[in-house]
Amino acid sequence: MREAKGRGAEMVVYPELALTTFFPRYWMEEEEAQRRFFETTMPNPQVQSLFDEARKLGVGFYVGYAELTPEGIPYNTAIIVDKSGKIAGKYRKIHLPGHTDHKTDAPFQHLEKKFFNVGDLGFRVFDTMDVKFGMCLCNDRRWPETYRVMALQSAEVVVLGYNTPSINIYWNEPVHLRTTTHLVSLQANAYQNGIWVAAAAKCGSEDGHHMIGSSAIVAPTGEIVARTVSEEDEVICVKADLSLGEHFREHVFNFAKHRRPEFYGLIVDRVGAGEPLA
Amino acid sequence: MREAKGRGAEMVVYPELALTTFFPRYWMEEEEAQRRFFETTMPNPQVQSLFDEARKLGVGFYVGYAELTPEGIPYNTAIIVDKSGKIAGKYRKIHLPGHTDHKTDAPFQHLEKKFFNVGDLGFRVFDTMDVKFGMCLCNDRRWPETYRVMALQSAEVVVLGYNTPSINIYWNEPVHLRTTTHLVSLQANAYQNGIWVAAAAKCGSEDGHHMIGSSAIVAPTGEIVARTVSEEDEVICVKADLSLGEHFREHVFNFAKHRRPEFYGLIVDRVGAGEPLA
Repeated sequence: MREAKGRGAEMVVYPELALTTFFPRYWMEEEEAQRRFFETTMPNPQVQSLFDEARKLGVGFYVGYAELTPEGIPYNTAIIVDKSGKIAGKYRKIHLPGHTDHKTDAPFQHLEKKFFNVGDLGFRVFDTMDVKFGMCLCNDRRWPETYRVMALQSAEVVVLGYNTPSINIYWNEPVHLRTTTHLVSLQANAYQNGIWVAAAAKCGSEDGHHMIGSSAIVAPTGEIVARTVSEEDEVICVKADLSLGEHFREHVFNFAKHRRPEFYGLIVDRVGAGEPLA
Repeated sequence: MREAKGRGAEMVVYPELALTTFFPRYWMEEEEAQRRFFETTMPNPQVQSLFDEARKLGVGFYVGYAELTPEGIPYNTAIIVDKSGKIAGKYRKIHLPGHTDHKTDAPFQHLEKKFFNVGDLGFRVFDTMDVKFGMCLCNDRRWPETYRVMALQSAEVVVLGYNTPSINIYWNEPVHLRTTTHLVSLQANAYQNGIWVAAAAKCGSEDGHHMIGSSAIVAPTGEIVARTVSEEDEVICVKADLSLGEHFREHVFNFAKHRRPEFYGLIVDRVGAGEPLA
């Protein structure tokens, strides 16, 4: 945060589940996971210094963590904290990947569907620090609905954290695709919505499990304007001209002029793929 | 078509408005445009040889043209013709770009909203030649809803034609972005839906107006697996393994498991961008 501030940053983006290891890779009972890895209040004594430093430096931040509500409901959560150190927005992850069963043949698990409930807050946009921010988490970034719902609320910047293992446990996916599909998802969705996207990941080895990193900042042009190059802690920083997105939202992606929702019904009427319409 | 067949092709994709110049660049009255550039029947004597050759070679094809219905309604249309030379599917362009007024200061016009009605057939999928084909046209390829609605009908391959001028008449857009935004749109939408996408354009100079070309075939991995390199007539060809998309549709993009339409409502409830939801 201090390095980012020194480079002029007003907003810092941290990864998903930034306060713990990416524990959904481990098989355990829900109770154990909640005891070891979940936050029951936010802020709390362990993270208060981060909030204090944000206020002192006058920067906002986004951070992801495992949230356990007072009612005992577990979510994969992210918050935006403003420059005064106050929580200005909260998001609970909606597109939970993975499985609930113990895949004993896999090199590791992906138990987000076991450890988290589907988020109940929708894809909201928060007007704070003179920016309309949207938020999402990890797998959400691969679903175009995520960005579109926020763009329809006039989002200007979408911030997100993620953890992507370098190995696909489901099929023998060529390694380079792990980065390619991550980047093209950010690029096309930034462009198609006329928004900036800032995506921050853990990288390299965490507990011996390798992750792709490749944190990136993408302009509304669809171009990657900053990305990490190493597998170490690294700060990337851009001056984001919010008016750049306006060119796209006024012309090619002028939603009011060009969208045709009367033909988009299946997007809400069907969950899974079905038969062709007659 | 003969060269494609010689390279093993079973399906050939031609551009949008392939039978005429891209006439929406010219200011004229609707009546004149319809008299000069629209087809009132399909096939018709001028294109019968294309249909005959398809049947003779045993290849299917997609082609775009300006359609005037018996009721006098104009559409920007594409058809799929099967290996027997029969029309197996029709699409009428939904996302019409451009304007209706005469922009006298612009180097050329983009009058699709003047010359065409919005298509009335939706985004359908056609099961023909043992493939579930979706179709769209040009600007449709930049809207993620286009592909999603077809993927929700189990599309395996989306074919499309386009004409993209090398100059943006609305703002001083850097030239390289014309190609970048085209390609990332194809790539991300192919990946995010687990489909193949084949996109064919006119290229180089047509009546002195330069177009980007950059026809491409994109795999469900999001990777460009073939693209044109020249600004001349050119055939690109791939053997498309339809089972490749299944890996994505079964795991990361298993719609039935992972989609959450209860949070996508704004996509059909709003046309243009509005206020953040509370």
